[in-house]
Amino acid sequence: MNYGVAIFPSKQLQDKVNSYRKRYDPNYALISPHITLKYTFFATEVEIETIAEQLNNIAKSHKPFKLNVVKPSTFQPVNNTIFFKVELNPELESLHKEMNHADFFGGPSPYAFVPHITIGQKLSDDEHSDVLGQIRMLDVTHEEEVDRFHLLYQLENGSWTVYETFRLGEEE
Amino acid sequence: MNYGVAIFPSKQLQDKVNSYRKRYDPNYALISPHITLKYTFFATEVEIETIAEQLNNIAKSHKPFKLNVVKPSTFQPVNNTIFFKVELNPELESLHKEMNHADFFGGPSPYAFVPHITIGQKLSDDEHSDVLGQIRMLDVTHEEEVDRFHLLYQLENGSWTVYETFRLGEEE
Repeated sequence: MNYGVAIFPSKQLQDKVNSYRKRYDPNYALISPHITLKYTFFATEVEIETIAEQLNNIAKSHKPFKLNVVKPSTFQPVNNTIFFKVELNPELESLHKEMNHADFFGGPSPYAFVPHITIGQKLSDDEHSDVLGQIRMLDVTHEEEVDRFHLLYQLENGSWTVYETFRLGEEE
Repeated sequence: MNYGVAIFPSKQLQDKVNSYRKRYDPNYALISPHITLKYTFFATEVEIETIAEQLNNIAKSHKPFKLNVVKPSTFQPVNNTIFFKVELNPELESLHKEMNHADFFGGPSPYAFVPHITIGQKLSDDEHSDVLGQIRMLDVTHEEEVDRFHLLYQLENGSWTVYETFRLGEEE
C-alpha cells in the first residue's frame, strides 16, 4: 500500500488554497491542501504498525510550532507546480529529517525539502505564466500554529485517507 | 465549523465500495467510504478541543472489534440511498450511543442507528431499482477488525478532512 506523511493546515487556509486548486490542481479531489513531510512510499499492513510507532515517537519529541506562509512561488524550471511557500523553520526541518533518512522506512527523500502548499500543477507553460502572474500580486502571508501531522494511505482511485493522527509534544 | 465522526474500513473494502460509489454516489470525491458514528454537527474551534477529549475517553473505554458487512440494502421508502449493511454489534451500538445523547455535543442523532457504508445516493427511482437489482445478487459478506475512528471537519467545498484519529482501547 502507498503511504505518505503530511500536515493539513487550518480550514481557513485550506479553503483559500482550494479556491485556486479547484481550477489549477488535478489532484484537487484526491487530497485536501497539505504540506508533505514524507513523499509516497510503499509499506505492508504489518510494516506500517512499526512506522506508526516511529512517527509517534517523532511527534512526541517535537513541540507545536508556528507555520508561516510567505509568498507564492514555482518549481520552474524543474516543473510547472505553483505553490504557497512555507518558511523552513527548525521544527519543520527536524520533522522532515527524522522521517527521511536512510534508516527510516522508505529512505531519504528524492527532493531537497522545500515546504509548500501546492496551488496548481501539471499546467501548460502558458497557463503557468498566467496563473503565476496573477498570484504573485497577492499578499498571502499567513501565520498559524501546527500541533499535529497525519499518516495517510492511498486508495486505488488515487485518493488519500488518514490512517492516523500524531499530536506534537503530547506526553502519553 | 461542521464536524462528524466516522470509521474508515480497510483499503480493500474501501476500494470495493468506491467501484460503485464512483458511478452512484455524488459524494464520491468529498469523503472516502465510511461508517458514520455521528452525523454532521456544528462546533467552534474552541469547543472541538473538549469534544476531542471526550471522544478520546470513549475510544479508550472500548476495545477493537470485528466489523461484519452482511448484505446490500436500501433506505427506501425513506430515501433512495443504497448501502452495504453492517451488523449492529454491541461495540458499534455502544460507540454510537456514547456520542449521540443529550449531554454530548450536537445531541442525539436524528436517525435510528443503522450502521452502513453508502454505495449510492440521490438516485432517481429508476436508477435505484436498477442498481439495487444488480447489487442484491452479490455476496458482499466480509469481516474485518476495527481499531480506530476519526473526527473529521468539512471544508467550504464540501470535502472532509481528518482532524484526529482515536485508537480503541489503547491505554495512555
